[in-house]
Amino acid sequence: MKTRERILQAGLALFNERGEAAVSLAQIAAQLGISEGNLWYHFRTKRDLVAALFAESEARVERNLSRPPSEAGDQLADFAAYATQAFRDIWDYRFLYRRHFHQTVDAALAARLVALTERGHRYNERILEEMVRRRLMRASPAEISELTANAWIISRYWLDYLQERHGVDTLSAPDIEAGVKQIFALYRPYLSEAALAQTAAPQRKRARG
Amino acid sequence: MKTRERILQAGLALFNERGEAAVSLAQIAAQLGISEGNLWYHFRTKRDLVAALFAESEARVERNLSRPPSEAGDQLADFAAYATQAFRDIWDYRFLYRRHFHQTVDAALAARLVALTERGHRYNERILEEMVRRRLMRASPAEISELTANAWIISRYWLDYLQERHGVDTLSAPDIEAGVKQIFALYRPYLSEAALAQTAAPQRKRARG
Repeated sequence: MKTRERILQAGLALFNERGEAAVSLAQIAAQLGISEGNLWYHFRTKRDLVAALFAESEARVERNLSRPPSEAGDQLADFAAYATQAFRDIWDYRFLYRRHFHQTVDAALAARLVALTERGHRYNERILEEMVRRRLMRASPAEISELTANAWIISRYWLDYLQERHGVDTLSAPDIEAGVKQIFALYRPYLSEAALAQTAAPQRKRARG
Repeated sequence: MKTRERILQAGLALFNERGEAAVSLAQIAAQLGISEGNLWYHFRTKRDLVAALFAESEARVERNLSRPPSEAGDQLADFAAYATQAFRDIWDYRFLYRRHFHQTVDAALAARLVALTERGHRYNERILEEMVRRRLMRASPAEISELTANAWIISRYWLDYLQERHGVDTLSAPDIEAGVKQIFALYRPYLSEAALAQTAAPQRKRARG
């Protein structure tokens, strides 16, 4: 692996584990057994490193958002896959989503986060419209907009919630399933009979209650 | 006002405005025009000051949670008042809710936040049970539990969401109303005919969409 990639990987792991504020470039260099000069050759400041990790995260999210909802099948599970991937994408770069970009300090990253958020909303609306089109759901455009804002908040902050409520430090498969389940609790009153029949399949074990 | 209270007030304002990490005790002393020695007499470390502000915030939340739901009337608006107050309580001490308490670093505060979160969940469940009792809502115990987790996440993270999506720095009355509206979107499919009739009253102006 190239030095630049090793720095990105070690920085991500340390930021996720200890929080961005608690980790210096010198510590990352020490962890990798390289000189600070070598690290600085790739990233002059911590902000440069954070910006590079943000770009990686953005690419991951874009990859999930670029799958056309129309390619999903007629099963609810096909749509649940989008939500599951969204949780994973956020979790892998969780330090970024725990930091709050201040408009004044990190104007460029804050603007990109706003753009990504808008894009995510439009995308989720398209998913729900597709579910309506496939008769898996009944909802008006206004309801789709409200559902999307609520689903976004639950997806985006599910990890923070688990951490605050249960002190979770690692995300287990049941934690992700529980998050997807909460999104479906949101959608359930709007699901059609056909969709509800699919959910009557054997229940998965519930994670931390 | 006593010096201790002035320090708490100035500390809260600066932490909220700039973020806790960016503000030193020396800066707070300078802002108040008192010596650092005088400030240290009241708070030896920033952690002491944060703990005192946490206790203030906890007392505010407890005050809201100590109003028995059974005292609410038969109007949906009576129940909306709890959510509105919860938003205000969080907003006034927002720096606390933006910081993430690490189990290892701030074990005592983290434990109190977990306890407050549990208490908030139980309280919201009692509110929804009371709404069911007053025939404003139809929901099973399992649905009440799911609704509560979703309502908690939306209340708790509404401010973060507005900031990330719209770069909001001050919380306006329409922003609070929009948050309450999202909670009601969550509850709407479960509201009884009687409750829905009350919502048919003139719509309030919508905040940022």
